[in-house]
Amino acid sequence: MNAPVEFWFDFSSPYAYLASERIDALAAKHRRGVDWRPMLLGVSFKAAGQRPLVEIPLKGEYSKHDFERSARLMGLPFRLPDPFPVGTVSAARAFLWAKTRHPAEAKALAHAAFRAYFSAGRNISDSAVVLDLATQAGLPRAQVEAGIADPAIKEALRAEVDGAVARGVFGAPFFFVDGEPFWGSDRLDQVERWMVKPW
Amino acid sequence: MNAPVEFWFDFSSPYAYLASERIDALAAKHRRGVDWRPMLLGVSFKAAGQRPLVEIPLKGEYSKHDFERSARLMGLPFRLPDPFPVGTVSAARAFLWAKTRHPAEAKALAHAAFRAYFSAGRNISDSAVVLDLATQAGLPRAQVEAGIADPAIKEALRAEVDGAVARGVFGAPFFFVDGEPFWGSDRLDQVERWMVKPW
Repeated sequence: MNAPVEFWFDFSSPYAYLASERIDALAAKHRRGVDWRPMLLGVSFKAAGQRPLVEIPLKGEYSKHDFERSARLMGLPFRLPDPFPVGTVSAARAFLWAKTRHPAEAKALAHAAFRAYFSAGRNISDSAVVLDLATQAGLPRAQVEAGIADPAIKEALRAEVDGAVARGVFGAPFFFVDGEPFWGSDRLDQVERWMVKPW
Repeated sequence: MNAPVEFWFDFSSPYAYLASERIDALAAKHRRGVDWRPMLLGVSFKAAGQRPLVEIPLKGEYSKHDFERSARLMGLPFRLPDPFPVGTVSAARAFLWAKTRHPAEAKALAHAAFRAYFSAGRNISDSAVVLDLATQAGLPRAQVEAGIADPAIKEALRAEVDGAVARGVFGAPFFFVDGEPFWGSDRLDQVERWMVKPW
């Protein structure tokens, strides 16, 4: 088995949602696992002097169209949520808490959070929503709730996010294949080619 | 024959260079021509509140790496020129002058300008370089020179650029297939799919 592909995501990124529905199967095809790593786009944007895509004149309108068109092409349900974007710190902490303790359920929570936000329009910035999704994913609600509030988890997420920025993660989704960086769901083809053979 | 694909480009865009080497063959495969349309990224950037990619922290470094890696994957020569980016108003005017008068040579000039800048590192912001390339492409040097300085050509380019921005062209390359907008060389696969069948 080769080293896992790093998949950096923010639950509020439409393109990360699209990638989240493909990356595991893509990696498995090439005998790789995937290390799902939450980050916070707000921190990356600040470091890179950027702002949310939909707030940018012209590009914002195009992007909304492109989210939907790309999702349709991939056969994935998509509806731009309102509000958008939202803060995802609770969801990221819940995922991080679960990741080492209940890996399978953590992955289920991640998929559930992306789908709840981008398909069902549920506001995942709300901790209560995150806890409902965690419970449905088979995680112990009270422990997840304590995890979200745990200073050690807060610090762990901060370290993840700062570490990502230090490695040049300026947006989401962001991938590393054996250290090689790729940004965007439209780089999934290059991610796959790099797994086969770097060029 | 179906309607031509619109291909909007700035001679200073690396991704437009990559697309310029593929778009004609791609369109021809689907019985389409290509309408090559010059724009000026500086104007688009201003309208969208953006700035050149390489000036953006983190994203700039990644982009330089991505230009080269994407070019290698496509089997195209690429070397990031210095200075980069440059103003391309003379090259755009020369192209626009030639486009209606000598279409085949205009296309040859466009390819020559992209390659001179991104492969040979020649500074295409210099009118003398543009005139040399135009001459090599089979265009009448003195007439191109007069064209670059012609108020009617200046106005024609301004109208092209303003018209592009009015249609939401915030970056390059930018394509329209039967009115459907696509941004970026990494959307060439979607451009092709849209020619086959919109989804």
